Amino acid sequence: MPEVVFSVDQSRSMADQSPPGHNRWHPDIPPVATVRPGSEFRVECREWTDGQIGNNDSANDVRDVDLHLAHMLSGPIAVEGAEPGDLLVVDILDLGPVPQQVGDAPGQGWGYTGIFAKQNGGGFLTDYFPDAYKAIWDFHGQVATSRHLPGVRFTGITHPGLFGTAPSAELLAKWNAREQALIDTDPERIPPLALPPVERGVLAGTLEGDDLARVGREGARTVPARENGGNHDIKNFSRGSRVFYPVHVPGALLSGGDLHFSQGDGEITFCGAIEMGGFIDFHVDLIKDGMSKYGVTTNPIFMPGNVEPRYSEFLSFIGVSVDHAGERNYYLDATVAYRNACLNAVEYLKTFGYSGEQAYLLLGAAPIEGRVSGVVDIPNACCSLYLPTAIFDFDIRPTAEGPRRADRGQCAISS
Amino acid sequence: MPEVVFSVDQSRSMADQSPPGHNRWHPDIPPVATVRPGSEFRVECREWTDGQIGNNDSANDVRDVDLHLAHMLSGPIAVEGAEPGDLLVVDILDLGPVPQQVGDAPGQGWGYTGIFAKQNGGGFLTDYFPDAYKAIWDFHGQVATSRHLPGVRFTGITHPGLFGTAPSAELLAKWNAREQALIDTDPERIPPLALPPVERGVLAGTLEGDDLARVGREGARTVPARENGGNHDIKNFSRGSRVFYPVHVPGALLSGGDLHFSQGDGEITFCGAIEMGGFIDFHVDLIKDGMSKYGVTTNPIFMPGNVEPRYSEFLSFIGVSVDHAGERNYYLDATVAYRNACLNAVEYLKTFGYSGEQAYLLLGAAPIEGRVSGVVDIPNACCSLYLPTAIFDFDIRPTAEGPRRADRGQCAISS
Amino acid sequence: MPEVVFSVDQSRSMADQSPPGHNRWHPDIPPVATVRPGSEFRVECREWTDGQIGNNDSANDVRDVDLHLAHMLSGPIAVEGAEPGDLLVVDILDLGPVPQQVGDAPGQGWGYTGIFAKQNGGGFLTDYFPDAYKAIWDFHGQVATSRHLPGVRFTGITHPGLFGTAPSAELLAKWNAREQALIDTDPERIPPLALPPVERGVLAGTLEGDDLARVGREGARTVPARENGGNHDIKNFSRGSRVFYPVHVPGALLSGGDLHFSQGDGEITFCGAIEMGGFIDFHVDLIKDGMSKYGVTTNPIFMPGNVEPRYSEFLSFIGVSVDHAGERNYYLDATVAYRNACLNAVEYLKTFGYSGEQAYLLLGAAPIEGRVSGVVDIPNACCSLYLPTAIFDFDIRPTAEGPRRADRGQCAISS
Amino acid sequence: MPEVVFSVDQSRSMADQSPPGHNRWHPDIPPVATVRPGSEFRVECREWTDGQIGNNDSANDVRDVDLHLAHMLSGPIAVEGAEPGDLLVVDILDLGPVPQQVGDAPGQGWGYTGIFAKQNGGGFLTDYFPDAYKAIWDFHGQVATSRHLPGVRFTGITHPGLFGTAPSAELLAKWNAREQALIDTDPERIPPLALPPVERGVLAGTLEGDDLARVGREGARTVPARENGGNHDIKNFSRGSRVFYPVHVPGALLSGGDLHFSQGDGEITFCGAIEMGGFIDFHVDLIKDGMSKYGVTTNPIFMPGNVEPRYSEFLSFIGVSVDHAGERNYYLDATVAYRNACLNAVEYLKTFGYSGEQAYLLLGAAPIEGRVSGVVDIPNACCSLYLPTAIFDFDIRPTAEGPRRADRGQCAISS
Repeated sequence: MPEVVFSVDQSRSMADQSPPGHNRWHPDIPPVATVRPGSEFRVECREWTDGQIGNNDSANDVRDVDLHLAHMLSGPIAVEGAEPGDLLVVDILDLGPVPQQVGDAPGQGWGYTGIFAKQNGGGFLTDYFPDAYKAIWDFHGQVATSRHLPGVRFTGITHPGLFGTAPSAELLAKWNAREQALIDTDPERIPPLALPPVERGVLAGTLEGDDLARVGREGARTVPARENGGNHDIKNFSRGSRVFYPVHVPGALLSGGDLHFSQGDGEITFCGAIEMGGFIDFHVDLIKDGMSKYGVTTNPIFMPGNVEPRYSEFLSFIGVSVDHAGERNYYLDATVAYRNACLNAVEYLKTFGYSGEQAYLLLGAAPIEGRVSGVVDIPNACCSLYLPTAIFDFDIRPTAEGPRRADRGQCAISS
Repeated sequence: MPEVVFSVDQSRSMADQSPPGHNRWHPDIPPVATVRPGSEFRVECREWTDGQIGNNDSANDVRDVDLHLAHMLSGPIAVEGAEPGDLLVVDILDLGPVPQQVGDAPGQGWGYTGIFAKQNGGGFLTDYFPDAYKAIWDFHGQVATSRHLPGVRFTGITHPGLFGTAPSAELLAKWNAREQALIDTDPERIPPLALPPVERGVLAGTLEGDDLARVGREGARTVPARENGGNHDIKNFSRGSRVFYPVHVPGALLSGGDLHFSQGDGEITFCGAIEMGGFIDFHVDLIKDGMSKYGVTTNPIFMPGNVEPRYSEFLSFIGVSVDHAGERNYYLDATVAYRNACLNAVEYLKTFGYSGEQAYLLLGAAPIEGRVSGVVDIPNACCSLYLPTAIFDFDIRPTAEGPRRADRGQCAISS
Repeated sequence: MPEVVFSVDQSRSMADQSPPGHNRWHPDIPPVATVRPGSEFRVECREWTDGQIGNNDSANDVRDVDLHLAHMLSGPIAVEGAEPGDLLVVDILDLGPVPQQVGDAPGQGWGYTGIFAKQNGGGFLTDYFPDAYKAIWDFHGQVATSRHLPGVRFTGITHPGLFGTAPSAELLAKWNAREQALIDTDPERIPPLALPPVERGVLAGTLEGDDLARVGREGARTVPARENGGNHDIKNFSRGSRVFYPVHVPGALLSGGDLHFSQGDGEITFCGAIEMGGFIDFHVDLIKDGMSKYGVTTNPIFMPGNVEPRYSEFLSFIGVSVDHAGERNYYLDATVAYRNACLNAVEYLKTFGYSGEQAYLLLGAAPIEGRVSGVVDIPNACCSLYLPTAIFDFDIRPTAEGPRRADRGQCAISS
Repeated sequence: MPEVVFSVDQSRSMADQSPPGHNRWHPDIPPVATVRPGSEFRVECREWTDGQIGNNDSANDVRDVDLHLAHMLSGPIAVEGAEPGDLLVVDILDLGPVPQQVGDAPGQGWGYTGIFAKQNGGGFLTDYFPDAYKAIWDFHGQVATSRHLPGVRFTGITHPGLFGTAPSAELLAKWNAREQALIDTDPERIPPLALPPVERGVLAGTLEGDDLARVGREGARTVPARENGGNHDIKNFSRGSRVFYPVHVPGALLSGGDLHFSQGDGEITFCGAIEMGGFIDFHVDLIKDGMSKYGVTTNPIFMPGNVEPRYSEFLSFIGVSVDHAGERNYYLDATVAYRNACLNAVEYLKTFGYSGEQAYLLLGAAPIEGRVSGVVDIPNACCSLYLPTAIFDFDIRPTAEGPRRADRGQCAISS
């Protein structure tokens, strides 16, 4: 086991760890540790909401979650010799739930998937599922099952939803400007178009008082992926993968968390992954001046690992960029196309007896693949969603006899 | 070898075949053959432009192509007993280039990938590559190489770009209405937002005179994917796959073509696939009332086959929904995100010595995977592009030494 | 399609082709063609018995087959510049059944698997299945089904059972000496321990008279794999694979045939593969002095291709080196261990309603994997047999309810 | 984390654990715990020699190891309701090295591979490598590297070498009889043909005095695989796999250990795996009367898991059943064939600069596949060894330029 450079007591809030983590992107959050290129180390993580969600059968906690606290990140970790323009090479050696513990915090033997209410977070299908729902998952080694989704059992493609390097002050200013410009196009929208910096709930390691308030006023919210990496929610950052992060500040300042036991491409329910706390083991190295050497100007590059769960049979759903209800055609809009693919999968699963919200939760958490299929055939983008058939304990394939409908229970709902 | 129900002489135009094929979607195009559920049969196909592109080193033919002729489809084939509401089960038993022939038509031992000019077709990166380019590929069994892309060699994931059932008159009217409404939002745009029905170039089997003109005036252009299947450009419709098409007219009326020796997800150069004529062997069956049984209201469902080329190491590029040049932020726009992932891959490949247009051609044709990664993390959609490292005969992975730049020639350009 | 350097008319015997092929290994069989390193070419092949087996429901033809005629090989093909000590690099670009033909010869739309009688050939389980049996397989693209094995459907891992270079006179003498020494330990055994040279049935291209008789007297039978390659029966010599053959004579003299639509590891019924005629497309090159450079003193090296059928769930059977009937323990004998694994699989399949001979035929032909698991744990070698579960159209996995027994017909038997 | 039913303090011998484990198969060893069908539990394990091998650069400990102590097993665990004739369904939920610890015992951050001396254990190539050698491996998440094998890095296919159910007294007597009969054919052989029961070194849980001595005199040594499972050394018993063990005594009495971080098929150096202590998490269930239902009379059945490391390119070596040095031909002997495949791989690797013993160690530990290729082509069995090319940090494939020879250090040797 490599040295722990950021440790977490899962019974306490991130604010009460020593040192605490942070929940904004800002170059002035002080590093908690410094490591050398070539070294291996462990980072322990809290679940992204800092433990607001419980192992129970009500989705009220999802409905009422305070998103100002999210994402609770571990770090930053400084890498000796890293300078702006370098590529930080990060190997994900291992990761998983909280080792050797069973308990009340997500990651202690269990995790959850949430559908967020339209009024508080939303999600990819929020116009179709505006209320809050939840599924609890139990971990069995690398396999997850849920009492809220009977008939389903799959191997998790465990990964961090969010890791990244610190932005420079200049890059941060650019983010804030462009996101505010977007918000300004429809400032009252629910859910909002983007989240601006906010003091409420800010945590910035050991910073206090004015320094902390300033990070709140300036620091980028952690929700989206950006030029520093960030909340990629790419399920393939699994064991054995290697990420090449752009370095924007001296020391690189690597931070992250938001560990997922599993997730489908798109993480469609917003916290569609199986959310958990846990640990992640890294090896780091540097490619000096790597951004210029390899033409990396914006986002990281990565190489997936070779132990992803192996499925070989898929049932695939297709969507095109048409609003079929309103018969409105969008121009090569892959978002609309993938949304339709998701909706088509939901309708299909309902014919087997799942509720729509169960199907939606499942597609967020299971190792589905979301593919951009055609984005040039005017006017319709075409996306497809690949559902592994082996995750069901019944035959999900279409047959002449029709679907095997059964009572498949229900997920946790809000009151 | 199964019975050939639509045969093609590759030395002649589709209009001169007996019977001819068609290049519009319309319910009144008469079937060329009738098959029974449970039967196997072969369909021969012309390349989608009906042979306008040559095996040479100039892209002028791509620049000047007449798109009114496309896509040249084989069929329609009626299936006994098929009625609206059924699912037509189509197994792709086998497909490939023109068997046993070497010649001048695409598919006779070779194929091509084209970047279409912004003035005549465009493509996914047309604002960055407004001119016409071409790469010729030679077939070696299931492997393709190109004199225009030295250093690259890969196994094709051979598939039909386009197959589908005939629309009903009602469905056709719906398509025409919603696409015209989109065109009307910016009717002078180049490239256009969509293509309306047009008499010029129409072919509708044996129809002539007024009947033919009417198909031209009413028939849907074949470019996009729609509720009948159509131009999916899903690379995973390969050998062994099974598609469940909605049936909209009695007899289902299955037609298609646009065979691809290989293609990357997105088919980003517009004719990004390696285009060819050839053959496709089908087995068909019916699920009576399958649309209602399985909740299929719009698009087909499919199951990929199990002989797709197996790659296990990928270099992956990420894009988010930001216009980085203009620092403009788009709201969860997967199209913008995937475009950025493509641009990032192009920039990367250029550091090894490829021209931008070579890289663009490569990403259209090679078996890359395009994934919808995160579409809920406001405001940034995140997409990723997986490039198999094994298709290069040099090491494409980032190293401390930097990229191995070399003279990698150039693709066919237009004069 | 590459140039055909050895063509076959499937309606005629190999002896009546022009030029004829050969059925012995001997350096003096004259080449039928000469190719250059770097070239691609096609070789057409007859089924290994030269068409003695028919598409019918009796196994009498298997029982009575004349094995002196086998294997009927195409070639030899000389490679310019090849000298003893080189490695001949052979890429298998493509291969398959007889293209575009349906007919009476194996490979014309169908193939067969045979269990050979103990009196005439034998097989891996010949003490348990001493009689002749047969299954006919129909080809559907890359998929095979059999009226003699209902409930089974799989993608073939198509490959040549037998290709190799010509032995030098010295090497040939060594083979004959060591194999005769083995025969001499039990010369009356049925089936025999090995097959010595024999004049009966010999074919040696255009050689006639004394030359032909000499090849009969000296030429090695084609049954086993040896230092020249030969009858490897390695199912992974499939599309896209590359073989490095040792060169023993000037020109290398590449010959072969015995094409298999599919085969399980071990080819346990002797002609356990799905036997067929067809075509194979090669690319050849040379590594000068490669044997010494890479320490190759005996057998070829190869790299499997990347389009093997992809199965991800297997039911695996284990065997150890014990004769359980006689409670006799063998010392680390992998042959005994694998035989037990096969027998255990047969017994398992019988509980679902297959006859023992059906199960045996299935294990010979389906894409099963045979693994050497432990060969050091004295006294028991341990081998395992991996049966893909997806090849059955019913659930083959063990459950608390027990196996789903059904009437599964019977294979072709002998009268 | 599931409940621990057998716990181990890695700083102490198995004899000093509370309760101790055992190192013989005998029905009278008392269970340490009882679990219910449907339950999940953890078993902690010592490395198989009970810690005789150190993390150092001398192979003297391997040379001098006391094999009477091996294998040190954890258990037995009784399963409620299990009766002879049932199948015990065992899911391997997770397993790994000693969690959260770095230390002196194998499994505490490191493991080793040993070549055993011919005088003390031997191995598959012991006639070619009669001395003792060792390689130490460091664990980096799921990846292993070795200072004794530079240039190599691979993902472990972590698994238990040995788990099984207790034999009945009758079955045990059968084993002892048949193995003694084998020993009697050459009682002075070095290494011996098999290992008879022996009192020296026996450990049998809490048994003492006469009871313990009797277990020593009667209990089967744990080296081979037998009808109860046992030392299968099947690398594919990895995470997610399911084993169906025959039950021979009431309660089934499941025991095992001998955890491997990785291993190649055959475990050719005898302790060719990367040996370690650690933990294993099980789920158990029963198929009542399953042996008869499914025709299981001898060995277990299993289904591999779906997270095995995914390699897609292999360099494959072939061997046939000929002693090439002595030109002696063996009859369809897969053991000889696989030995030749191993020797061919060793010779190949030597051309890149590895010593023969390094190559031998590598083939024992890396995720190589050993296949039974042809076992019917008289007189030569044919086996093949698949070496993943991606485990080397240099290009291992044959090229016209010849191998990239380098100084690749040396493994630990004995003095």
